[in-house]
Amino acid sequence: MTVIPKETLIGRRIPKLDAPAKTTGETRYINDLALPGMLHGKILRTDRVHARIVRIDTSAARALPGVHAVITAADTPGVPLGHGRDNPPLKGDRVRTIRDEIAAVAADTEAIAAEALRLIRVEYEDLPAVFSVHEALRPGAPVLHDRHPDNIPFTFDYSHGDLAAGEQASDVVIEDTFKLHYVTHCCMGVSGVIATFDTTGQLTIYSQTQIPFLYKRDIAPVIGVPPDRIRVIQPPLGGGFGSKLDIYPFEPICVFLARVTQRPVRILFTREEEFIASPTRQPVEFTLRSGVKKDGTLMFRDARTLHDNGGYTSWGATTPFVMMQTISSLYRVPHCRYHTTVVYTNNPYAGSFRGYGNLQATFAVESHMDRLAEAVGMDPLALRLKNAQAPGETTPQGMHFITCGLRDCLQTAAERSDFVKKHATNRAGQTGPIRRGIGIASLVHVGGGANIYRTDGCGTILKLDDFAQATVLTGASEIGQGSETVIAQFVAEELGLPLTSIQVVNNDTEITPWDVGVHASRTTFIAGNSALRAARKARTKLLAAAGQQLGADPATLDLRGGHVVDATSGEARLEIGKLIRSLHFAGKHEVVMTTEYYEPPSVMQDREFKGNVSATYAFGTQAIELEVDTETGVVRIQKVTAAHDVGRVINRLGIEGQIEGGVVMGIGYATTEDLMVSEGRVLNPCFRDYKLVTAPEVPEIDTTFLETLDPHGPAGAKGVGEAPAIPTAVAIANALYNATGVRFRELPFTPEKVLRRLREAAEGKP
Amino acid sequence: MTVIPKETLIGRRIPKLDAPAKTTGETRYINDLALPGMLHGKILRTDRVHARIVRIDTSAARALPGVHAVITAADTPGVPLGHGRDNPPLKGDRVRTIRDEIAAVAADTEAIAAEALRLIRVEYEDLPAVFSVHEALRPGAPVLHDRHPDNIPFTFDYSHGDLAAGEQASDVVIEDTFKLHYVTHCCMGVSGVIATFDTTGQLTIYSQTQIPFLYKRDIAPVIGVPPDRIRVIQPPLGGGFGSKLDIYPFEPICVFLARVTQRPVRILFTREEEFIASPTRQPVEFTLRSGVKKDGTLMFRDARTLHDNGGYTSWGATTPFVMMQTISSLYRVPHCRYHTTVVYTNNPYAGSFRGYGNLQATFAVESHMDRLAEAVGMDPLALRLKNAQAPGETTPQGMHFITCGLRDCLQTAAERSDFVKKHATNRAGQTGPIRRGIGIASLVHVGGGANIYRTDGCGTILKLDDFAQATVLTGASEIGQGSETVIAQFVAEELGLPLTSIQVVNNDTEITPWDVGVHASRTTFIAGNSALRAARKARTKLLAAAGQQLGADPATLDLRGGHVVDATSGEARLEIGKLIRSLHFAGKHEVVMTTEYYEPPSVMQDREFKGNVSATYAFGTQAIELEVDTETGVVRIQKVTAAHDVGRVINRLGIEGQIEGGVVMGIGYATTEDLMVSEGRVLNPCFRDYKLVTAPEVPEIDTTFLETLDPHGPAGAKGVGEAPAIPTAVAIANALYNATGVRFRELPFTPEKVLRRLREAAEGKP
Repeated sequence: MTVIPKETLIGRRIPKLDAPAKTTGETRYINDLALPGMLHGKILRTDRVHARIVRIDTSAARALPGVHAVITAADTPGVPLGHGRDNPPLKGDRVRTIRDEIAAVAADTEAIAAEALRLIRVEYEDLPAVFSVHEALRPGAPVLHDRHPDNIPFTFDYSHGDLAAGEQASDVVIEDTFKLHYVTHCCMGVSGVIATFDTTGQLTIYSQTQIPFLYKRDIAPVIGVPPDRIRVIQPPLGGGFGSKLDIYPFEPICVFLARVTQRPVRILFTREEEFIASPTRQPVEFTLRSGVKKDGTLMFRDARTLHDNGGYTSWGATTPFVMMQTISSLYRVPHCRYHTTVVYTNNPYAGSFRGYGNLQATFAVESHMDRLAEAVGMDPLALRLKNAQAPGETTPQGMHFITCGLRDCLQTAAERSDFVKKHATNRAGQTGPIRRGIGIASLVHVGGGANIYRTDGCGTILKLDDFAQATVLTGASEIGQGSETVIAQFVAEELGLPLTSIQVVNNDTEITPWDVGVHASRTTFIAGNSALRAARKARTKLLAAAGQQLGADPATLDLRGGHVVDATSGEARLEIGKLIRSLHFAGKHEVVMTTEYYEPPSVMQDREFKGNVSATYAFGTQAIELEVDTETGVVRIQKVTAAHDVGRVINRLGIEGQIEGGVVMGIGYATTEDLMVSEGRVLNPCFRDYKLVTAPEVPEIDTTFLETLDPHGPAGAKGVGEAPAIPTAVAIANALYNATGVRFRELPFTPEKVLRRLREAAEGKP
Repeated sequence: MTVIPKETLIGRRIPKLDAPAKTTGETRYINDLALPGMLHGKILRTDRVHARIVRIDTSAARALPGVHAVITAADTPGVPLGHGRDNPPLKGDRVRTIRDEIAAVAADTEAIAAEALRLIRVEYEDLPAVFSVHEALRPGAPVLHDRHPDNIPFTFDYSHGDLAAGEQASDVVIEDTFKLHYVTHCCMGVSGVIATFDTTGQLTIYSQTQIPFLYKRDIAPVIGVPPDRIRVIQPPLGGGFGSKLDIYPFEPICVFLARVTQRPVRILFTREEEFIASPTRQPVEFTLRSGVKKDGTLMFRDARTLHDNGGYTSWGATTPFVMMQTISSLYRVPHCRYHTTVVYTNNPYAGSFRGYGNLQATFAVESHMDRLAEAVGMDPLALRLKNAQAPGETTPQGMHFITCGLRDCLQTAAERSDFVKKHATNRAGQTGPIRRGIGIASLVHVGGGANIYRTDGCGTILKLDDFAQATVLTGASEIGQGSETVIAQFVAEELGLPLTSIQVVNNDTEITPWDVGVHASRTTFIAGNSALRAARKARTKLLAAAGQQLGADPATLDLRGGHVVDATSGEARLEIGKLIRSLHFAGKHEVVMTTEYYEPPSVMQDREFKGNVSATYAFGTQAIELEVDTETGVVRIQKVTAAHDVGRVINRLGIEGQIEGGVVMGIGYATTEDLMVSEGRVLNPCFRDYKLVTAPEVPEIDTTFLETLDPHGPAGAKGVGEAPAIPTAVAIANALYNATGVRFRELPFTPEKVLRRLREAAEGKP
């Protein structure tokens, strides 16, 4: 008798299924794809920040041998794209940012295309430009888009409670203005796209998009191809992080070139182009006013933010959706107001970026929690614990925390880092140029999708082949976050099969069922639930069939190690492959195929931005220890103690990677990364001048996972893709205060800026 | 009010969906595929027909720059393959046919691989060889395979009734021996395969196989890779016709080369290699003895066939399965016996080939029907009608003809060709060297699959996207027969969508559900039923949802022209795309996905080869008019009048193509095609010497479709892929008799052979 003990894949350390291919170079990124007859496209971008286009002369470029097409706005329908539908793919009359696209070339080689760009002559008439939100809001400021003569494409207003009453009831009120800077995603794989029409007019786009199904709908009117004639294939991504959530001009331009040439065309950015012409994280000026009672009870928050939208409106403009959640709901606050003004300028424009406004909002909120604590003489941990949300609460914004590990996260991070003692000791005063500091900060973020469309679901189709192989066609996109592996784990677990028997297929709108896309840390939760349910249906069929064959109640059977086993004794009764073959080749001739469309139990927010927008929420706390050299301004992060409420660990290796990657991204945001934009121009479009945190600079990261076992989560899991990047920067700011007694309200903490701020403070600026 | 009239796609002339890509050169055949780092494989074949291998020296080949691997049998597991499991991929000790594989090379280019082959030295010890079945059966003949010391790998015996009684009751008994020759498939695309292992050891084979799912199972033990680690992708085929129903040595050899080199490897035949080393149609010596009463009632048939199996056993050896059906069941015959001996020789070996033995069996049976008619003084049509099967009959072999259009086919072909009158007139005697003849012949063939595995089913997965696009993942393979188009028609018809909204996906075992493969004219019937049922499930969901939205009984609604309409008035009530989106984006958030595994109502034959092996049967009659020049032996086909019981026409253009293609293939089999094999060697391995019928030689073809509306067929259809090739050669033989009074018992009717036979006959040989 063979006994197969009950074991679980859930929580184990599983190398990502796509890792071997990626580490050996087998993975074919878009850079590696070549369709037969493929041409190479390049885009001519303007060198003006704001100008009228008087004339474009492409004749010399057209005449260059090897050039197949040169197009300008005149050759295109001119339908604007992007979240704000204000950005024509090629600009015909006017440019508003230095990334603006004015012509494009398709040629036999990239070199010829680049040469052709140099031959295009453009005559401009410069227009007055604005480079700050304040300038842009001034009466009489140059207007960027006629539709918005005030340069304000959006405002957001949220409130609950009675702000005046809240202020009245507060013993301490503080106000600060924080300035959050430009950074960009720095995906290791640059932006690229391939477009090709077949002889019937069907368009296939090899796109790096994070939203393949919405992409079809969104790009269709821009390119004049009906969405049902568009197929989106996603090659493996060299990084997404939210940067591929919108459609950017190079994509329809590539389609136009493919249409004109009737050849496949690829556009692939140079690294410099990637820095200049891919989205940024939303830069924000954030004014926060908060009040507490003497006992530390938080009474109100009043937030006013100014968003530099750049020249066009992409998803960056919508980050207030997320920002307001942290303002209203990370801690209990009875009175709250949030107002955002999004302002056009001639600067680069912002897209979505891991955390989606939450890094900025959390920076303000968690800076204030420290300041309020100090003002009422409490320990920062104590103030937070006093006001922290708890399981079962529904916040005034309507977010319902069925599970909430915030208090546990705070306590765990504090205990494991010895926060209270170290914080107090550091504050007691240090001498010498090198000062030690510890800071703490928490986060709340959606962890079960974000119901911003009218569905937030994901489809799965599962089929079992004769040899107990499962193919899982999932709508979810693997963009490096490890979703394939997690989905395979869920299916393998349900079906009692080894991971090698699970093939996850996830890259082609023609084949896979619908999904919203990769955003809002939703994939493990939503695609996971979808796959799990599809697998459970298959499990039920297998167990029913096994029960019949074995003359046993299916409830007494289990699937383990490729076998049907007795659930109690673990005795192997039947090989699953054999069971599948017996179903297929005998009797009713059944082939096990199941489908599932999972829709999470969340709702769209109402017009007041209220409603339980996610099926669950992720929480976390990071305590960060650092040293700052007060003579050089150099900040050295020494240790990050992270405690995250992840619902349940599915792939321990994967989630460790998510946490570590997020923390490192947060450290970069705080200390090294700075997209320097001056008068609309990016000054440092290269990795020499734009500094990423690299491996040697990564500090010790101590991670604890708090498993709150969300009742809606697949095996209890919550989404955590974005969470770990969120509180890092402000924990560092709080640590800097702890080290130096100086409050840092502007990012990044590069040596120069730290030194300048220390001197300012020494000169009395608070 | 927009009214959409009820129209049907069924029976219309629909250009094949893959035609635009094929005609413009967009289709990527295996010749066009190049994987990154791909090497080119070539196979060293022996030049002996029967020999012991003493030594193989590959050292010079290995030393050639650009060569990555040279392998011989010693480098492989040596597990034999093919239907008879008697054919090791590389021969280590012995060669038995001139196509035998003894070494293989993988190199940077095909030219280097070819050069490396020339550097391999092989030392042989010749063995005595046999080149005819009679030699091979002689006592003391050289033995090809030790397992079969009599050189007989298979025999087949079938009988019903009492043969002696049948002969006793016959007034006329005749016997003839027919000799059916070698032809080969002549696919325009030569054989090829690409094998590649990924870093995890998963094997992907780009195979031209007609049986992708069985292929995994069959190749696994030969290559030592478990079937669940094999993925089969089928690139578009340049012709199948049954030639890709088995696994041939080049395929595992390619896998071995890929494993040794850890690189993708492609093997692509030259045209000469294709002639020498791809399968043939089974050559047969066919002795038939038949008896009738004076009134024309057929009393018995006794068939004995000798099959030249060549050196190894592929599917050609199993053609008796089909042959015996025509012997037993094309006409009512109360007493019947069929015996086949399959014999190893040192000749090339036979695979399956459109019609699968039925061209040979029908040649004998329909020659005899003419001879019997003459013997009892009846018109050939009258004798056939007297004995023809009719609807509702179950033959002694167990074949149940729910529908049977044989009599209609006979009458229609005869009437439209004016057969009776012309036949009588021609026989009345002609003078001059040019003689006119008309001949008639019929066929029965499986038309609803052939239940030779324990399932004969096909799976379908269907999903509807937001824009009323349907993706149909079908197990069925499109190999040029037009199955994609027919499947799309069924789905479009059920869902009321235009054909452009249907995407058929059918080429990847990882993605599509199981199917037996392309054989036995089964795809329209079985994959069609499967797709139809999957679509019907989706239709039911859509109509139910529409009924709910419109407050109407779903039974009063129909789907037409992309709309939900009132079934009676045709009034458009709701756009289907909108309905799908409303299901998806509201309420229960449903995405329409359905699955189906269709199993036909047929059974496996018992050990006596009895049972209703197919869900339905196709019938047909061809009347062929020709002229023969008795001085030169040149036969000119003038007109083919074909009447086929196809159940129902689905794609009229497609089925016309099938009939015309089959007839032309039959004409080639009869008059021009001749793979000349002498002492085991192919003498004419090129299109200069192997003559295909080309467009200018194609006669007028008058086709009538008899629609018997099979109750199990999808929309009433039967499979007809093989049928039209079957009766052509014998109708020509009968026409030659009608023209010359000489019975032709050997194919092909090339001028030389016709002239020789006419002279023989003039010299008195009957």
